[in-house]
Amino acid sequence: MYYIGIDVGGMSIKAGLTDKDGSVLHKTILETKGEYTADYTISNDIHTLIVKLLSEAGVTEDKIAAIGIGQAGSIDSERGIINYWNNIPMKNVHVVEELHAWHSCPVFIDNDANVAALGECVFGAAKGLKNVLLITLGTGVGSGIIINGNVYRGEYGAGAEAGHMGIIMNGEPCTCGRRGCWEAYASVSALIRQTKAAMAAHPESSMNDIARDMGEVNGITAFKAARGGDKTALAVVDQYERYVAEGLISLQNIFRPQIFLIGGGISKEGEYLTAPLEKYVYEGMFDKETGEGVKIRPAALHNDAGILGAAALAIQGAGA
Amino acid sequence: MYYIGIDVGGMSIKAGLTDKDGSVLHKTILETKGEYTADYTISNDIHTLIVKLLSEAGVTEDKIAAIGIGQAGSIDSERGIINYWNNIPMKNVHVVEELHAWHSCPVFIDNDANVAALGECVFGAAKGLKNVLLITLGTGVGSGIIINGNVYRGEYGAGAEAGHMGIIMNGEPCTCGRRGCWEAYASVSALIRQTKAAMAAHPESSMNDIARDMGEVNGITAFKAARGGDKTALAVVDQYERYVAEGLISLQNIFRPQIFLIGGGISKEGEYLTAPLEKYVYEGMFDKETGEGVKIRPAALHNDAGILGAAALAIQGAGA
Repeated sequence: MYYIGIDVGGMSIKAGLTDKDGSVLHKTILETKGEYTADYTISNDIHTLIVKLLSEAGVTEDKIAAIGIGQAGSIDSERGIINYWNNIPMKNVHVVEELHAWHSCPVFIDNDANVAALGECVFGAAKGLKNVLLITLGTGVGSGIIINGNVYRGEYGAGAEAGHMGIIMNGEPCTCGRRGCWEAYASVSALIRQTKAAMAAHPESSMNDIARDMGEVNGITAFKAARGGDKTALAVVDQYERYVAEGLISLQNIFRPQIFLIGGGISKEGEYLTAPLEKYVYEGMFDKETGEGVKIRPAALHNDAGILGAAALAIQGAGA
Repeated sequence: MYYIGIDVGGMSIKAGLTDKDGSVLHKTILETKGEYTADYTISNDIHTLIVKLLSEAGVTEDKIAAIGIGQAGSIDSERGIINYWNNIPMKNVHVVEELHAWHSCPVFIDNDANVAALGECVFGAAKGLKNVLLITLGTGVGSGIIINGNVYRGEYGAGAEAGHMGIIMNGEPCTCGRRGCWEAYASVSALIRQTKAAMAAHPESSMNDIARDMGEVNGITAFKAARGGDKTALAVVDQYERYVAEGLISLQNIFRPQIFLIGGGISKEGEYLTAPLEKYVYEGMFDKETGEGVKIRPAALHNDAGILGAAALAIQGAGA
């Protein structure tokens, strides 16, 4: 039997046909305009893509054990509903029920951060582990929490928003409307803000040259200059690492997971990112005496992370 | 069948005989000097107390289905070990194994905050609920996390230390050695510090009279004066509530529990404490659109909380 993993993003929907070992046998994509105003529009797009995937792969639907969907936004996984999606206006869309009008196999949906965490546990950097936190550093700070091998969602699937822990009460404004959230310091957007401020204060820093060459300031500007020994960049990266560590310390003390995984483009910095994080989190954590300290690693699933995470949800849901 | 709940504190050990509905049929206490230097000393004290309890209650040991122990310190529940106890020097004490030398029924041990949370879920203010956080405001800030009806402990039982989340990076020093932990602002010790500072700055505040009458500044000084309309005290209580809320917002966003319970002596302030907390947490929480906002209530089990929590652990462990 096969599984279908579907990764719904703002501008496109990707679908992959996988086996239960996480091999992606075929994949396909649907460019959407992200204009989902009416009921059934998103379900219809997903359905269209499933038909396309099966047709291209030459597989009939009776060979599909389950379909998994990883979807941005607030998802009520238990009820199969998109509560809402802040990027694209939609509310209370009953995706699972709607897809069952076309497809009889089990369909599961969950938040994209949750399925990414599950994918890492089933196929990736946390393979075989049961208590795992995946933190995604991107435009925001996302989190996926795996407890005892299952995704932790909270009531109505509205939990696992670790990016909106506070780390500095009444601090920097956050996109959520509050001040001082971890996301306002540890997201790549925040790093870019921190980088720009340092560049303006230190015109001699090589970050200015790097940004000119690349045509923009982005999440790697400071890391690139820091690797080259630029003092200002080293300070930016160090301060950013301390912000990231501040939130990780809270999560370490609350969860004591077996491992933290760091996802998002910045995780490509590898040990250059994770080694100082491990050091700072170990220094700040409660009860160092018990257990084996702290383990922080980059996430392993890159391009197919969305598809494999959604497939892992389908596989777990089908009890395979 | 009956259950035994044992509550091990720094100066005494309490034991209660209960039925599976949480009625405490008999209880007894052993005053200890808290001097546990050698192996078996604490297990021997617990054993002595069990024998005393059964003898006083006139119940034979074959009528006991399970024994539960709630114990301060770092507990590895899975392995039945006290990792260590910061108040009284002890390390790696194999309590469960040691007790089995005398008692053949199943024995379970867990951290006191964890069993208190479990007790509230089984017998108290969260009866029948599955996702519950109990926050104990006392000398420190303790937390018990119930997920899907079970205690969440983390690796080696070293998790669930929400008091050591950071809320103000590089802020007030905490007893754990780090700065800015929630405990350093939201514990009763912190409230007393905040009260004393306001009293010194405002000699006209009625908090000074109240403290003189009571012979000390304690956790109720500011609350008592605030209820009487004292402006300085109202500001102290409001700021304290905001500190407590700051940590609760982080936990709300991470866990989205069904309910928060507030334990510790200060919970006797009831709605005067919890109503503003609910307001502040609701204002600060992520994704207000989904679900039913936030619910914060005082814990319900008071004097027998330790015994009933430990009994709940025994009952759950025995699968009753």
